[in-house]
Amino acid sequence: MANKASSRLEWRINVPDGTSKVLEPESGAVGKIWVGLKGCMGIIVWKVRRVLENAWHIGVADPRKVIHCIKVGLALSIVSLFYYMRPLYDDFGGNAMWAVMTVVVVFEYTVGATFYKCINRVIATFLAGALGVGIHLVAEQSGDQLKPIILGISVFLFASAATFSRFIPSVKARFDYGAMIFILTFSLVSVSGYRVVELFELAHLRLSTIAIGTSLCILVTMLFCPVWAGCELHHLIHQNMEKLADSLDGCVTEYFKENGSEEDLNKKMQGYKCVLNSKAAEESMANFARWEPTHGRFNFRHPWKQYLKIGASLRNCAYCIETLNSCISSEIQAPPCLRKHFSNKCMKASSYSINVLKELAITIMKMKKSSNIDVKVAEMNFAVEELVDALKSLPTTHFIATTTGEESTKAKVEGVEGSEHPSPIMKVFPLVKVVSLMVEIATRIGGVVNAVEELARLAEFKAAKDGKPKQNQPTDKLVSDH
Amino acid sequence: MANKASSRLEWRINVPDGTSKVLEPESGAVGKIWVGLKGCMGIIVWKVRRVLENAWHIGVADPRKVIHCIKVGLALSIVSLFYYMRPLYDDFGGNAMWAVMTVVVVFEYTVGATFYKCINRVIATFLAGALGVGIHLVAEQSGDQLKPIILGISVFLFASAATFSRFIPSVKARFDYGAMIFILTFSLVSVSGYRVVELFELAHLRLSTIAIGTSLCILVTMLFCPVWAGCELHHLIHQNMEKLADSLDGCVTEYFKENGSEEDLNKKMQGYKCVLNSKAAEESMANFARWEPTHGRFNFRHPWKQYLKIGASLRNCAYCIETLNSCISSEIQAPPCLRKHFSNKCMKASSYSINVLKELAITIMKMKKSSNIDVKVAEMNFAVEELVDALKSLPTTHFIATTTGEESTKAKVEGVEGSEHPSPIMKVFPLVKVVSLMVEIATRIGGVVNAVEELARLAEFKAAKDGKPKQNQPTDKLVSDH
Repeated sequence: MANKASSRLEWRINVPDGTSKVLEPESGAVGKIWVGLKGCMGIIVWKVRRVLENAWHIGVADPRKVIHCIKVGLALSIVSLFYYMRPLYDDFGGNAMWAVMTVVVVFEYTVGATFYKCINRVIATFLAGALGVGIHLVAEQSGDQLKPIILGISVFLFASAATFSRFIPSVKARFDYGAMIFILTFSLVSVSGYRVVELFELAHLRLSTIAIGTSLCILVTMLFCPVWAGCELHHLIHQNMEKLADSLDGCVTEYFKENGSEEDLNKKMQGYKCVLNSKAAEESMANFARWEPTHGRFNFRHPWKQYLKIGASLRNCAYCIETLNSCISSEIQAPPCLRKHFSNKCMKASSYSINVLKELAITIMKMKKSSNIDVKVAEMNFAVEELVDALKSLPTTHFIATTTGEESTKAKVEGVEGSEHPSPIMKVFPLVKVVSLMVEIATRIGGVVNAVEELARLAEFKAAKDGKPKQNQPTDKLVSDH
Repeated sequence: MANKASSRLEWRINVPDGTSKVLEPESGAVGKIWVGLKGCMGIIVWKVRRVLENAWHIGVADPRKVIHCIKVGLALSIVSLFYYMRPLYDDFGGNAMWAVMTVVVVFEYTVGATFYKCINRVIATFLAGALGVGIHLVAEQSGDQLKPIILGISVFLFASAATFSRFIPSVKARFDYGAMIFILTFSLVSVSGYRVVELFELAHLRLSTIAIGTSLCILVTMLFCPVWAGCELHHLIHQNMEKLADSLDGCVTEYFKENGSEEDLNKKMQGYKCVLNSKAAEESMANFARWEPTHGRFNFRHPWKQYLKIGASLRNCAYCIETLNSCISSEIQAPPCLRKHFSNKCMKASSYSINVLKELAITIMKMKKSSNIDVKVAEMNFAVEELVDALKSLPTTHFIATTTGEESTKAKVEGVEGSEHPSPIMKVFPLVKVVSLMVEIATRIGGVVNAVEELARLAEFKAAKDGKPKQNQPTDKLVSDH
């Protein structure tokens, strides 16, 4: 009977790679458990393999992450020496633990983040320690009855206040970690002070172990392949500018080309999405960058906040490009003859806009004032105006002005008369959309130009050396193609 | 001579509230230092006052933050009892420190975040402790010479591997804190094991103090005014939907109204910016929410990820509204007669779109399937089509079809003939922009509808009870105004 039932039951395991195995029924409960275990193991092995593959790709894509892991291992191994070497151990004893803990907690990927945590940790430990000892002394004066009450109330008050300070944005940005360490140290000192008489000795030992831990972290993070938050931010903004230029290029090319879409172009077009999503990364990097000492081309007081403004203006452009991108996939498209007529003008406007973005990217990368950005902006504006004029001059006859006699403008049939055919308004509709977005994008690129110029002023960029300005041609490929 | 010079020097301190004081020269260096100190103190006092004012506003705006601070103080005070009560102290000794430390580090604003840290901390401590003891035993077998080398290498390897795992997105989202605690505990155990013989005793004590700390945190965070990450996420998405509807309303009203802009409307219009910037908050809340047990209307396995998809579709709308918003401030505006003609249609389309958004917001808030969302979507689509038709029927005569004889569509002068006057293309240009954005916004609202319906399916929302569907009227105010 039981055998019959088990022969009707199938153990089917859906291994997540798409295949599903029918497991043959084995005899008895042991068999079933064994089969179930095998299935579980299979899934676990598959999941682990996927995580490992993922890890491999991450390591290959950015070897600095692997180096960071080695650095952490190295710092921990060095700090372990305190335990292994008897003379040092005798000096610090169990307090050497704080050095290990400091290294684990404080060591971060970027130099800025490590500095931020180190400085916060040292200052907060010192302040909280001093305050804790002070309150401990006061409590000692008030007798054994009052002492725990005073200590308890002070822990409650200071912990609450420090916790609240973490909600204030300006404090959170700079001293979030410090506030936590403050609470930690203060509670530990005022509470353990109840027992330990040698409080000063303890404080001294703990501070020196923390100092050892932090200085080790700072040394290791700065000496071996340092990753500077400032450089990363600089690089991110530069890359985002390039990506934005590429997406704009990709979108306009895609819209006006006649053949099907290519894989390559599609990937290029998606660049704006990175720009849309990089706000959080930019902000945290700018926060860390201001802790970094002078490095490479960046001073201690480099205007990192201005990078955030450039980032915001880039995102502003990206919003428009996102809308432009949705025009491409729109069902309603302008008739081919109209598109062909506009394609040249639009490609020109877009390639001049791209030129401006690329010039800005070069300005950022080289940290030199561009000598011909004004020319490029003027070209962009001119190209956009031409585009609008082309739209204006679409043949629309017999228009009657408003009754108030505002203007009796009659649109003149210009230029395109012979080659092109006029269309009813719905045919122009998708084109007007694209043109209006191009105009808007050009305006917003103007915003990026202003932000970059402000950065150049604040960071005192030098003028670029090369005397002969480059030929102000739009990207050749684009124009010659059409 | 010195007197003369000092009488020409003015000490001017720019107190940041806009006033600047001329300080009268006092006699000698002491006076100057005194004056300088007074200035510094003034600035510090001013800064502290500003931070305090800021803190006050934060506390008034969200009293739960104040409650959180009190909860932290409370938890710390309770855990301090371990020190003050002799019998407990004798049991745990110095290890009671770990309970204090756990409370400080683990206590977070939301229940989900506290759970995440608690579970991570306990599991990571246990795993790392077990592994550390195991490796310690192996090292002990290999003699005193090899032991430090084996321990050192194992610390290096495991610390590096755990650090690397923090770069893998799926691990980072769930086990970032656990990985750090793993490194910490493993290094401490394998390093201190070199000295301490009673390793098992120590491990047991430490685990039990951590268990005490974490369970205290979980109790306090859940019993006193709990802040659930899931509820917060739910509320945020609901609010963002409302804000989006308000901005759309504000933008369209602003565009078509004849008087100057009002303060109130301006504020309303800016709501979409919150939507644009809430990605990071949504993601972290969704991450924490999945650690939360069943609470209120949310099960343990509530589809929190779907909220992220709704958030993304809302942002998609917000991009368009951002572009629409820039149309308002654009210099080129359509002539008043045209705008007046379109105002009604546009307001209608926008108010039907807003209706859909508001209905979705209600669906989310009540967690009940809407009975008339389909009708509202149909109305929205119809209103948008009407708007496009109105644009189509703008009088454009004498259009000649393309030579290929594609379609000899002649735009018919319909409806508006008598009341309105035709305009050249440039006059229609800004309107076409607005209309095309309205069409795009309606399409994207369709995306939000799909995402919400998917959520309703996944979370098994019940159908709303009220049998009689509400009157499907657009927001009255909007239509009657114009």
